[in-house]
Amino acid sequence: MNALGKHLLLELKGCDKEVLNDIGFLREALLAAAGEAGATVLGESFHQFNPHGVSGVVMIAESHLVIHTWPEFGYAAADIFTCGSSVQPGKAAEILVGKLGSKDHSIIEMQRGILDT
Amino acid sequence: MNALGKHLLLELKGCDKEVLNDIGFLREALLAAAGEAGATVLGESFHQFNPHGVSGVVMIAESHLVIHTWPEFGYAAADIFTCGSSVQPGKAAEILVGKLGSKDHSIIEMQRGILDT
Repeated sequence: MNALGKHLLLELKGCDKEVLNDIGFLREALLAAAGEAGATVLGESFHQFNPHGVSGVVMIAESHLVIHTWPEFGYAAADIFTCGSSVQPGKAAEILVGKLGSKDHSIIEMQRGILDT
Repeated sequence: MNALGKHLLLELKGCDKEVLNDIGFLREALLAAAGEAGATVLGESFHQFNPHGVSGVVMIAESHLVIHTWPEFGYAAADIFTCGSSVQPGKAAEILVGKLGSKDHSIIEMQRGILDT
């Protein structure tokens, strides 16, 4: 089975609530995750919500990393979508789990672009 | 089962190859999809690859829409992640399938943030 992309869906529960509302910390965390994975960063877009919560994306040459946080629940959803064999999305996942202090996480891996060629 | 977010993963095969390499068209398509879903656009980041392919994200107050295209295979991966009951992600999916001219598509729906509360 040959897929064009690998997509990790991270369910991050039991996170540090303060971290989940800190847009600067989350931006650095996503950039660190991209770097650790060996990805090339192309762009980003981060947003702080009122009264709480952050959304942010880092576009990479190999696809993207994105996060949405609910500090009130200690929960974040993060995706790491990569293509090509030069990047290591699992390393990016480890970074995010660690930096957010998640005490209860799960990762679903989806194969994207399974073609008939 | 109460989830914070609804995440649609679109596998779009048999698309119009020219459209998949047209960054302007794809940007308009994602913005149209966000608008049709009733979402509020916060930011965007689009990138053209050489020799072909486009990646783009539209951040919305309700989460995000993202696309990665492989014109050489007539394939695109798109995600529509929304939270809250005021938006209709299914309408965004319909727009993308139609605008990309996909002749073979599938949509997987994932629930994100199923909490124990």
